[in-house]
Amino acid sequence: MTIGIDMMGGDYAPLEAVKGIRDYLSSHPAPSPLLLIGDQTAVEDLLKKEQVPMELLTIIHADQVIGMHEHPTRALKEKQQSSIAIGFHLLAKGQINAFISAGNTGAMLVGALFSIKALEGVIRPTISTIVPKLGGGSGILLYVGLNADCQPEQLNQFAIMGSVYAQLILGIENPKVGLINVGEEEGKGNILAQATYPLLKENSHINFIGNIEGRDVLTGKADVMVCEGFTGNIILKMAESLYDIGQERKLGDEYFNRFNFENYGGTPVLGVAKPVIIGHGISGAKAFMNMIRLAQLMLEKNVMEKMKEELA
Amino acid sequence: MTIGIDMMGGDYAPLEAVKGIRDYLSSHPAPSPLLLIGDQTAVEDLLKKEQVPMELLTIIHADQVIGMHEHPTRALKEKQQSSIAIGFHLLAKGQINAFISAGNTGAMLVGALFSIKALEGVIRPTISTIVPKLGGGSGILLYVGLNADCQPEQLNQFAIMGSVYAQLILGIENPKVGLINVGEEEGKGNILAQATYPLLKENSHINFIGNIEGRDVLTGKADVMVCEGFTGNIILKMAESLYDIGQERKLGDEYFNRFNFENYGGTPVLGVAKPVIIGHGISGAKAFMNMIRLAQLMLEKNVMEKMKEELA
Repeated sequence: MTIGIDMMGGDYAPLEAVKGIRDYLSSHPAPSPLLLIGDQTAVEDLLKKEQVPMELLTIIHADQVIGMHEHPTRALKEKQQSSIAIGFHLLAKGQINAFISAGNTGAMLVGALFSIKALEGVIRPTISTIVPKLGGGSGILLYVGLNADCQPEQLNQFAIMGSVYAQLILGIENPKVGLINVGEEEGKGNILAQATYPLLKENSHINFIGNIEGRDVLTGKADVMVCEGFTGNIILKMAESLYDIGQERKLGDEYFNRFNFENYGGTPVLGVAKPVIIGHGISGAKAFMNMIRLAQLMLEKNVMEKMKEELA
Repeated sequence: MTIGIDMMGGDYAPLEAVKGIRDYLSSHPAPSPLLLIGDQTAVEDLLKKEQVPMELLTIIHADQVIGMHEHPTRALKEKQQSSIAIGFHLLAKGQINAFISAGNTGAMLVGALFSIKALEGVIRPTISTIVPKLGGGSGILLYVGLNADCQPEQLNQFAIMGSVYAQLILGIENPKVGLINVGEEEGKGNILAQATYPLLKENSHINFIGNIEGRDVLTGKADVMVCEGFTGNIILKMAESLYDIGQERKLGDEYFNRFNFENYGGTPVLGVAKPVIIGHGISGAKAFMNMIRLAQLMLEKNVMEKMKEELA
């Protein structure tokens, strides 16, 4: 199983990607082969400089880079020799089994949607985020994307995909699913939440515990938290800001430190046939290392296959 | 100007209301006359026990109490002798100029909507919350209510009402209005946010600074944060949980302590003709004191009149 890495994505490319690879190779007991896509000379020089062992590495040269602010669809179409376009090409052909980038998020999403297939029946693949629980462990929140309007059936699918992820990747037996809402009782909420509740209640593939409220997000009442992209994105960014606030206030608190996104590395696109992981633009070595670890774990645990079964 | 107080509302009624009144009277340089509505004997006994000076106080007996979990409309209709029903009756007749309760939130909202008039043109009166800014001072978030689906024009009105409140009550000159959204650029967001942006942009009554994201909520980029009730409610409850988390983690941090809702007392219903303030069910003496102070300030600053002008 080979993991492809876009070496040109992110604000500190390719240096931090190289360092992340170095740390991954030296710390993982059974590292996967890696295929590095980017400026061959630059990448080779850095690998040498950082004394990275080459046994498991292959470099594929990419002439072009998609910038962080380019229009996703246009850039993918016009820059066929970019590291992201090549990555998805290799992923579609099966030459790599997973693909990681800290580059243009939109281009990564578009690439995931159009280069590799969505799992059968999936209305819209989703991106999610890990939320540290106050009492220890983590939950998963989805959807946190930018196509903010959703249908009830999509939320129902998010619940299934999130449950599989929580079980296989977060290691939670029979994960509790909560619908993010403005009150605990059935019947509360906006039209979408009201229409989603019965779907989740009748869904035998998940362990639905009912509505959860804003105060439950951080305390871990549910392992899988489901909402549309608008609310999810606001919660995600508010949670991320807690790390910065903790730093600014010099809290030195273990819980607040866990909001450092570098610990989670990146967010996988769920609902597509192969692992695609999107990193933060400001990803450093630790984030890259953790993204590679995550991709490997997703392959080892057969996450996509299990999702396909549960969604069927 | 007389302020009416429901003595029977909240989990610790009437004791904490009595203590709050005592603290208000002893700390305010020019306290208002107060009209206390509730079980006369119980209230009188407690006032005596707490040695509260009686000069500014009048007690009105109420036979009934609306419980925290009663159906709002039904309870108001069937319990005409309840403290909340009597309070709104007195407010409508002009015998009190503002009304405060920590009782059944739904009954307070229904009472506000049907006993006293909405300001001309207001589609739906709103409840809001104060959000402490990381750098000091506070912003206001609205709408945080339970009727979660909103129209663009409502959000536009929230922006106006929030701006007046921020100016007169929070003391912010020319308050900055931000639309809560999933990205900074115009055109981002769900259908509602996309439709609201141009209304805010063209609104000459407010100082619109554009979209703000989840990470900006606590840092105070905007003074007035506008969104529909679903997102607002989730943010409100997530922010409130920060206080509890700060306590549990023993942070002892000044910023996190500011999330203690007792500091703000209660949330005013905005868009109605007279000040109505709704407290948390678990309001203690400090919350009651601060609710009375807020009601007095809203009357002194003529907040409702100013909103009416700006909305016209």
